[in-house]
Amino acid sequence: MPEPRVEIEYCTQCRWLLRAAWTAQELLTTFSAELGEVALVPGSGGIFEIRLGSEVLWSRATQGAFPDIPELKRRVRDRVAPDRELGHTDRNGRATGASS
Amino acid sequence: MPEPRVEIEYCTQCRWLLRAAWTAQELLTTFSAELGEVALVPGSGGIFEIRLGSEVLWSRATQGAFPDIPELKRRVRDRVAPDRELGHTDRNGRATGASS
Repeated sequence: MPEPRVEIEYCTQCRWLLRAAWTAQELLTTFSAELGEVALVPGSGGIFEIRLGSEVLWSRATQGAFPDIPELKRRVRDRVAPDRELGHTDRNGRATGASS
Repeated sequence: MPEPRVEIEYCTQCRWLLRAAWTAQELLTTFSAELGEVALVPGSGGIFEIRLGSEVLWSRATQGAFPDIPELKRRVRDRVAPDRELGHTDRNGRATGASS
């Protein structure tokens, strides 16, 4: 299995497949050379959780919201490519709702 | 790791991420209860390969074309849910280019 591995587990009843697939494409567009794979995992019970290896990077249950993509990219970057600049994702700082 | 696992390995230089992500969404829409996960795997050298476990279901190198989605779904179905009817995907038979 290619490493590092990101998992995106999403609730199928909530119809969050498209949101999960969009998130996967955002991560793979930015980290095509750094990530081994991004797996889409059908789940249930309102789950929307993003894991890097065994570490939870984002959980809708805990954080009460879907991931902010720039913040999610910074969390992935800090772990798989800490020296990598993310352009305007970095320049916009950590404000929630900043554009990606 | 959730099973059964589908891997879609795509060539990043060829910019086949969107095609791979679309294929993943087609499979997860049809087999949300039967598949454990679909992983998007960045690759190189013109690869576009779809694997179920260790079995290659489709290889652009071997077959000379991108997967026909209805045919791909039939191949997945035959392995993970052999009793499952696929509606018009089945009724259209195995003709290449049949709509999904």
